[in-house]
Amino acid sequence: MLARQKIIPTKEAEKILAGLAQVGKEFLSERFRFLASDEDIHSAIERRLTEIVGPPGGHLHTARSRNDQIVLDVRLYLKDVIGNLRVALDEVREVLARLARQTIDLVMPGYTHQQRAQPVLLAHHIFAYYDMLGRDDERFADCRSRVDMMPLGSGALAGVPYPIDRAFVARQLGFHRISENSIDAVSDRDFIAEFLAATSILFVHLSRLCADLTLWATAEFGFVEFPDEFSTGSSIMPQKKNPDVAELVRGKSGRIFGSLVAVLTVMKGLPLAYQSDLQEDKEPMFDAADTALATLRTLAAMLPALRFDGERMRAAAQGFLLATELADFLVEKGLPFREAHGVVGAVVRHCLKTKKQLETLTLTELRRFSPRFDREVLCRLTPEAAIARRRAPGGTARENVERRLEKLGV
Amino acid sequence: MLARQKIIPTKEAEKILAGLAQVGKEFLSERFRFLASDEDIHSAIERRLTEIVGPPGGHLHTARSRNDQIVLDVRLYLKDVIGNLRVALDEVREVLARLARQTIDLVMPGYTHQQRAQPVLLAHHIFAYYDMLGRDDERFADCRSRVDMMPLGSGALAGVPYPIDRAFVARQLGFHRISENSIDAVSDRDFIAEFLAATSILFVHLSRLCADLTLWATAEFGFVEFPDEFSTGSSIMPQKKNPDVAELVRGKSGRIFGSLVAVLTVMKGLPLAYQSDLQEDKEPMFDAADTALATLRTLAAMLPALRFDGERMRAAAQGFLLATELADFLVEKGLPFREAHGVVGAVVRHCLKTKKQLETLTLTELRRFSPRFDREVLCRLTPEAAIARRRAPGGTARENVERRLEKLGV
Amino acid sequence: MLARQKIIPTKEAEKILAGLAQVGKEFLSERFRFLASDEDIHSAIERRLTEIVGPPGGHLHTARSRNDQIVLDVRLYLKDVIGNLRVALDEVREVLARLARQTIDLVMPGYTHQQRAQPVLLAHHIFAYYDMLGRDDERFADCRSRVDMMPLGSGALAGVPYPIDRAFVARQLGFHRISENSIDAVSDRDFIAEFLAATSILFVHLSRLCADLTLWATAEFGFVEFPDEFSTGSSIMPQKKNPDVAELVRGKSGRIFGSLVAVLTVMKGLPLAYQSDLQEDKEPMFDAADTALATLRTLAAMLPALRFDGERMRAAAQGFLLATELADFLVEKGLPFREAHGVVGAVVRHCLKTKKQLETLTLTELRRFSPRFDREVLCRLTPEAAIARRRAPGGTARENVERRLEKLGV
Amino acid sequence: MLARQKIIPTKEAEKILAGLAQVGKEFLSERFRFLASDEDIHSAIERRLTEIVGPPGGHLHTARSRNDQIVLDVRLYLKDVIGNLRVALDEVREVLARLARQTIDLVMPGYTHQQRAQPVLLAHHIFAYYDMLGRDDERFADCRSRVDMMPLGSGALAGVPYPIDRAFVARQLGFHRISENSIDAVSDRDFIAEFLAATSILFVHLSRLCADLTLWATAEFGFVEFPDEFSTGSSIMPQKKNPDVAELVRGKSGRIFGSLVAVLTVMKGLPLAYQSDLQEDKEPMFDAADTALATLRTLAAMLPALRFDGERMRAAAQGFLLATELADFLVEKGLPFREAHGVVGAVVRHCLKTKKQLETLTLTELRRFSPRFDREVLCRLTPEAAIARRRAPGGTARENVERRLEKLGV
Repeated sequence: MLARQKIIPTKEAEKILAGLAQVGKEFLSERFRFLASDEDIHSAIERRLTEIVGPPGGHLHTARSRNDQIVLDVRLYLKDVIGNLRVALDEVREVLARLARQTIDLVMPGYTHQQRAQPVLLAHHIFAYYDMLGRDDERFADCRSRVDMMPLGSGALAGVPYPIDRAFVARQLGFHRISENSIDAVSDRDFIAEFLAATSILFVHLSRLCADLTLWATAEFGFVEFPDEFSTGSSIMPQKKNPDVAELVRGKSGRIFGSLVAVLTVMKGLPLAYQSDLQEDKEPMFDAADTALATLRTLAAMLPALRFDGERMRAAAQGFLLATELADFLVEKGLPFREAHGVVGAVVRHCLKTKKQLETLTLTELRRFSPRFDREVLCRLTPEAAIARRRAPGGTARENVERRLEKLGV
Repeated sequence: MLARQKIIPTKEAEKILAGLAQVGKEFLSERFRFLASDEDIHSAIERRLTEIVGPPGGHLHTARSRNDQIVLDVRLYLKDVIGNLRVALDEVREVLARLARQTIDLVMPGYTHQQRAQPVLLAHHIFAYYDMLGRDDERFADCRSRVDMMPLGSGALAGVPYPIDRAFVARQLGFHRISENSIDAVSDRDFIAEFLAATSILFVHLSRLCADLTLWATAEFGFVEFPDEFSTGSSIMPQKKNPDVAELVRGKSGRIFGSLVAVLTVMKGLPLAYQSDLQEDKEPMFDAADTALATLRTLAAMLPALRFDGERMRAAAQGFLLATELADFLVEKGLPFREAHGVVGAVVRHCLKTKKQLETLTLTELRRFSPRFDREVLCRLTPEAAIARRRAPGGTARENVERRLEKLGV
Repeated sequence: MLARQKIIPTKEAEKILAGLAQVGKEFLSERFRFLASDEDIHSAIERRLTEIVGPPGGHLHTARSRNDQIVLDVRLYLKDVIGNLRVALDEVREVLARLARQTIDLVMPGYTHQQRAQPVLLAHHIFAYYDMLGRDDERFADCRSRVDMMPLGSGALAGVPYPIDRAFVARQLGFHRISENSIDAVSDRDFIAEFLAATSILFVHLSRLCADLTLWATAEFGFVEFPDEFSTGSSIMPQKKNPDVAELVRGKSGRIFGSLVAVLTVMKGLPLAYQSDLQEDKEPMFDAADTALATLRTLAAMLPALRFDGERMRAAAQGFLLATELADFLVEKGLPFREAHGVVGAVVRHCLKTKKQLETLTLTELRRFSPRFDREVLCRLTPEAAIARRRAPGGTARENVERRLEKLGV
Repeated sequence: MLARQKIIPTKEAEKILAGLAQVGKEFLSERFRFLASDEDIHSAIERRLTEIVGPPGGHLHTARSRNDQIVLDVRLYLKDVIGNLRVALDEVREVLARLARQTIDLVMPGYTHQQRAQPVLLAHHIFAYYDMLGRDDERFADCRSRVDMMPLGSGALAGVPYPIDRAFVARQLGFHRISENSIDAVSDRDFIAEFLAATSILFVHLSRLCADLTLWATAEFGFVEFPDEFSTGSSIMPQKKNPDVAELVRGKSGRIFGSLVAVLTVMKGLPLAYQSDLQEDKEPMFDAADTALATLRTLAAMLPALRFDGERMRAAAQGFLLATELADFLVEKGLPFREAHGVVGAVVRHCLKTKKQLETLTLTELRRFSPRFDREVLCRLTPEAAIARRRAPGGTARENVERRLEKLGV
């Protein structure tokens, strides 16, 4: 660009490009030698370039400062990382959808307050995570559009006095926008904080998924078994499978939240423009990026290998969870919602007292509590029936879940 | 909707609507009485409604649960709040633009590492904040599009077994989308965390603006004076003006970051679906919303009343800050950037040794360091000249700033 | 003190004291009227005092500034709060000890990775929390010793030019030390951050206790039932008991961590001495104090009312958890630890394959895996035997737990 | 200990000790080879030990589990680290005290709200930091006393069934206490959170010190110059000294706060006992320890090399800062504090209107505002006089500062 704009002679620009290509090779082949006198990566490259091409090397930092160079590097890195994260997120979502397809026959209790509340399809529960990760993906996309801003040409803070072509540089580097204010460009790191916030929310979701899985893997729940490769055992207790990977993912949320707090703290109350405090933006960002990518890839490998125990899940989805079905039946028959709840509460208390199960009550018994009960009610009292009736959009009915799977082509 | 879908009789629906209108009036006129037996706001309203309209009141919670109702309320609230915040942000940005217009003649030192680095226009510095707040506005808009999802019809967690029309409800309530998964809808609060993250980043920006202002208001800088209404004095030192408002805004960033951490912590590792932990989402959200709105409105009132001292600012923008100009001059004359820096370094050291100012050096003196200096260089050594030359897009040149102001119609 | 040191006339001091007594009464009886012209609580009191006693009221702020006054108030408040918290902590610990005493016969599985690992006494598990809270108490005591420093006499920041007697004031106000540096005294709030850190760690412990309880209260675990007063039900599912209180306590940890982050953020990078940012220290502190006190008192009331299901707990503490017992037996008989583990692993795999339980194996079967097994081993395979053998200090053996209870006189 | 208690044969214990010594040597000389089959450091060492000594190597984990071993290692590490930190803190404090001694003649403005408020000694300001770090040292000492607890013998979670001598092991390893509850011992990490909280508060203090220094190093303040080794310059602006080290220290506070948040988050709501989430306790701890130690050592080297500009500081400490002196004078003469403030306010307004300085007013002029002014007042209006009069304990009077220096033997 400098030559194209006649800021430096074309010949010298060609020498510089050739020299930089060689420097690049030296880095790739790990032959690049840093000297004690190199203040930082920028001066090391310029020094080496000048060794190779002589005086033209001195042009390297024309119309460029470390302050705008650093922001450029971070933005290039983060665009790349977010792209990779979105691919990995997509893969996890696809894995979840396939898992939903495979387990479409399995019913389980839905929980509120960790108490059994209503029967749901496991596949429906899985789609809850599918949708959470979908919004995470949106957040990363939105963040990336703000990362996608080319800062070169901001100089140290005031802009540069050369007739540079910033739009050209942006196109060459794959950016869609250029920054509009040089001071802003070199001193803000809001896009890093936003990236860490999006990653933190992703880890809220992943930590909840893993909390569900570790819970279901307890002997007491017994809903799921972890594959050997993703759990550790004990030489003495071969049956004990510790869901290490799930625990670690849950634990990793701490370090991600910490990185977010770190970057917010670093920037808080800092006068403009560039200050060295901002050097502390990098490690949290690198660590969060690496952690998130590794976590998503591990989950994409682990989730398909989970083995669900459909029998135990179904067994847990029976009993008083079905009380709502009785109430809904009465509402359909015209009883106001609140009264229906009153009637069914009495039925349940009767069962508790007489140690009976809801599904074993006879019609005669039921009618003692309300004359609106009729024969039809008896086939309502299975998890499958309860699930099938929740077919309003977003409900757990199998037809809803299957419609989503079809739309996704899974 | 319940009547429209023939879930409850139209007559009863009409009674309910009339009854709710009366309940609403009682709230507005503060005549609504809570009873000790009311478990929460939901049961209080249903109880009162039933007192007014009799049995039909019992229909109120048909196809609705506290779990989806609460999320609905939070989403309605947050859509509203974000709308108000964006209006307030717009106003602050407009105030900043007008301030830039009014101060277009003022030059000041741009700082890196809090050291004077290069002259800039105050208006250019102001636009750095303008652009930061512009991205904050984008983040709020993005967040709002995710808040804008209608959750009713999710029931307690599994959906509802009635033929409800969720899309109709969404339109009535002003939502553009409905949630696709009932478990997700009642158990996630990612949109609150996202709102708090956007607000935290906003407060990073505001805290930096206020850090600049308090710095400039020191006796040592003396660039700005706070209006009396936005500072506190001392009966004994009438000249002492404490920039309280700016300090408080800076301090408020702590509480906002804290609220973000609170909500992330609450959700971390929580098994699905709804759990009472989530009640702790509200106070951080309310507090952040109120704090942000009040802060933006206060700034919109305070910023126009700041009095800048152009003379002190210009005086600080002279001297060795202009060294870059000399180097740029030599680069234009064909010297590689690095060599030019070497020459000017020598000039500056000479000045320091002889206690001279750059702008007082004669051409003869300058040419002792490089023959490329000529008469033209002498008019480069003013802040205005330095600023004018940074006219590449994004640079501080007055023509750049004026172009932005024109585009904004300010 | 001012009169005692002859800084103001005794008569006027007496008038001031009388006047302040009256002002105090007005506050207590809520008759105190604030005026629009009162800048803050300090000026309101001085204004009212002067209305009552005339000119001597003007002495009120002699040798005192708002800056040291505020810190004094916060320190007095926090000393008091920490005292109350320690009393409440003590009560919770006593409740835990009594609960351990009452449940001394109950055995349960100890868990690692939420997997059953080894049988323990419920009382031993309870004592884990007892010890955690004991360290919390220590932390509060340590913190309080740093809160216990009298700052009056620091003036606005430089000290005061009157011959005041700070040690006397300290004694009157119940402090054991005076601050040694006036700038430090008015500008640091480290003791608030320390208080919030101690409270955060307390809530880590309480959130873990509540996580255990909500887990045990699931239908799947079924170890504990919450008392009605500390859980909410559903009109339709009278058997469903949501452990709301435990969930809320767990959720409250978020707001406490947030308050800690808030105060750290406020102080970070703030030049000395007093700045208005520090006003943001109060709400996090008040909120944390109120939340902690209410939480501890609620737990002290709730814990004694928990009903444990000893049968379900014991049933869960059998089976392969006892494998370690077999290995320990072989080690006693001289087999190296690692070899013993290998043998027992084989036994367990045999059981899994043949669907047998460890405790039903005959001696003949066992000896097939190692000749070191003898008759004695058969009585090892109960939870009680496993527990009894862990009698090294700190282990779960009943005699250990009983020794602690005796020492505590419970 | 195992041999001493006759748990394993003495001969085998001797072999193990010899073998471990050799393993240790292999680690120190970096000849230790990890195998792909080594699950972790524990199994690697046992495997290698067994290669060296044969079957007795299998005894290594007798009465020991990874769970208690890990906590032991962390506690040993942290005891060591805190010891080193306290030494480094002591050194910084000594450096500060020596700096106070060297600069005992320098006066400067004390600031509130970053506005000049009252003259103070630089040495007094330095002692504010001395006292802050003193409390940090206390916090580390308190924390260390809680780290100092020997957990071995807790086994995986339930204790061990061998007649071990835990007190003996504690003595051998330099611990003063043993843990009293095995479940608590393996599952809590409160001591790490406490360490990170203490380090966070330390960094609040260090970030404030560095904020003061960077402020004072601005051209506008001009109070201090950074030594070349602790600042970076620019080839073109040799006079520009960026206080990089101070900025970096300020920035490091972000990562420390982040580490604290990470560990609190990891532990929040985690059921007992050990879970793999706890693996995430280490990196934050290691990073905070390394960062804190490096920061303290750098400050200990940098602080003595600061060059203060006494003239600029004294010049800034004159003028209206001395208004308080006039008021105090009138109070001494019997005027109530509030009235005295009113009089002096009028004097200052008069000066502002007539563009006069307080110290140039004549007695006649002063007496126009109050007849209580007399000749004596004239010598009050210097920074030194103002400082000298603040001799109440804790005040900035030189005699106070010198007394502290003497007591410290500096």
